[in-house]
Amino acid sequence: MRKNKTVAELLKNCPAFPEFDEYYANQARSRQDQLTKPPGSLGKLEELAIWMAGWQRKTKPTMENVNCLVFAGNHGVSSKDVSAYPSTVTAQMVENFKNGGAAINQLCALAEITLSVIPIDLEKPTCDFSESPAMSEEETFAAMQLGHDSLSNDCDLLILGEMGIANTTAATAISCALFKQPVEKWTGTGTGISPEQLFRKISVINTALELHGVDFLSPVRILSSFGGREMAAIAGAVLAARLKSIPVLLDGFACTVAAATLQLFDKQILEHCLVAHSSAEPGHAGILNYLNKEPILDLNMRLGEGSGAAIASLILKSALATHNAMATFAEAGLSGKN
Amino acid sequence: MRKNKTVAELLKNCPAFPEFDEYYANQARSRQDQLTKPPGSLGKLEELAIWMAGWQRKTKPTMENVNCLVFAGNHGVSSKDVSAYPSTVTAQMVENFKNGGAAINQLCALAEITLSVIPIDLEKPTCDFSESPAMSEEETFAAMQLGHDSLSNDCDLLILGEMGIANTTAATAISCALFKQPVEKWTGTGTGISPEQLFRKISVINTALELHGVDFLSPVRILSSFGGREMAAIAGAVLAARLKSIPVLLDGFACTVAAATLQLFDKQILEHCLVAHSSAEPGHAGILNYLNKEPILDLNMRLGEGSGAAIASLILKSALATHNAMATFAEAGLSGKN
Repeated sequence: MRKNKTVAELLKNCPAFPEFDEYYANQARSRQDQLTKPPGSLGKLEELAIWMAGWQRKTKPTMENVNCLVFAGNHGVSSKDVSAYPSTVTAQMVENFKNGGAAINQLCALAEITLSVIPIDLEKPTCDFSESPAMSEEETFAAMQLGHDSLSNDCDLLILGEMGIANTTAATAISCALFKQPVEKWTGTGTGISPEQLFRKISVINTALELHGVDFLSPVRILSSFGGREMAAIAGAVLAARLKSIPVLLDGFACTVAAATLQLFDKQILEHCLVAHSSAEPGHAGILNYLNKEPILDLNMRLGEGSGAAIASLILKSALATHNAMATFAEAGLSGKN
Repeated sequence: MRKNKTVAELLKNCPAFPEFDEYYANQARSRQDQLTKPPGSLGKLEELAIWMAGWQRKTKPTMENVNCLVFAGNHGVSSKDVSAYPSTVTAQMVENFKNGGAAINQLCALAEITLSVIPIDLEKPTCDFSESPAMSEEETFAAMQLGHDSLSNDCDLLILGEMGIANTTAATAISCALFKQPVEKWTGTGTGISPEQLFRKISVINTALELHGVDFLSPVRILSSFGGREMAAIAGAVLAARLKSIPVLLDGFACTVAAATLQLFDKQILEHCLVAHSSAEPGHAGILNYLNKEPILDLNMRLGEGSGAAIASLILKSALATHNAMATFAEAGLSGKN
């Protein structure tokens, strides 16, 4: 039996990814046109059902095994006072996830999602990226591999989320480098920082962009420069899902940025990803514009943890419930158009 | 025991409506600020939970008995070929609802909503409103009363929807009269009509506005002028819910217009109503602007049946799931802000 390729090997020798399957998409499209409603009247729900059909290769797509992976990591840059909370909160929130007390716990219970929380070396924060690279390439590959290996084969929809005090600082640095944007424009207040902290956050990111430059040729290099481990893991999980043709729901700002790093490897690599919601972080709308992705929801959320994606999965469930179970005009004996 | 007032009596002697309860809203607000998340990070979910608390008069609002009432009516104006479907489809769709084959059936099953479908005199369409009033005042009051009486006392969230071939023609006429808008601007393609039909639809509405005028002083007069019975019933149900302080989720265009007629009676009467989604019908966004209501979702839907509201109820469920069951900072032993 052939050994599975590692993330490092995958990124060295570009594999042929499974593509969106037009056959099943067309089957689903044809089914939509027979359901007892005016054609197109379910709007975005119809598009989502067809999209799921193409990626799952099923005329009637399923959400029987939705997995939410929440990766957690600690950031050395939090010592620069760029977050509203101390870095001890990352581990405390992981405990809260395990005890069922966080937002994502309630949302996964509501939406029947299996939640896995994966803390990555919390006792070993990344280095302060405004002074040195956040991680070595080996550490970055290890985190990507962990994310890659966390995806189960029977998952039919993957939801990704993150937790990491100060990670919007890393995510903003990555996004400003990736999309060559001024730091002032895309830096937000994250968990709710003061104007002084916002000023410091911008300054720290600018220093880091001068230190590491803004021209990156690979996901590993940009992730090792800025961190964090949780974002590298998300990139690895997105890659694994693409190889298995499993559709992905990305959460908000940090999660989308983590996935976007993979575009340095392949511009089309995120075609199996939906973006769940438009985050309140100012950079998110701009990134979605560059990625040409329309968010499903806009609820002014900025929590992370996969929370926005868990909610958006309910819209996907609505899309599949109507697509799979509505009667056709023929089944219901309905008159057609005038 | 005092007899309940009829809708006709209620609209004659303005009752004092129960108001939004600031005490419970503040209790809920205070709870939100203690939950294990940065304050405000759940965005719209927080606002929705607080809003539900104020109307239900509960610090932890519930959705244990969500009712969806779908009223159906037939419209004489359908003889003018303003819809993509023949008027026989109204009764056929009611059969489809009863057999569980429509979109709203799947969405109510998904969201654990009790669905009631209430056809109103389908064999007796309203008169063609471009030639005479659609209904007498007696008929209008009867339909409003039916809607009013359809609300059960133990309902904790009311979802309203409608079915009626040609009812976007009536709804557009009502909205153009209510908000003094040019018919061309707010007339849409409804179930998917041809350009010729759209031209005819606009012409029919313009004729009707000349016939009935655009200055109305009461919900009953405007509803009797244009119809239909299903829209009068929605207005009656919204009124009943306000008297009982039961929060309401309005669906799309026709449903919102039906509720908006009540503003002729009292400008503040829709404070207990949320609008579920922004319909693809062109008039809807304009109406929401006049009503100062922000839709929860924008999924480009235009089906009716309460379908958009059933989906939006899942966002409300997400709001209550997090509000009611998350741990507080104290319960989770979490560090506070820096």
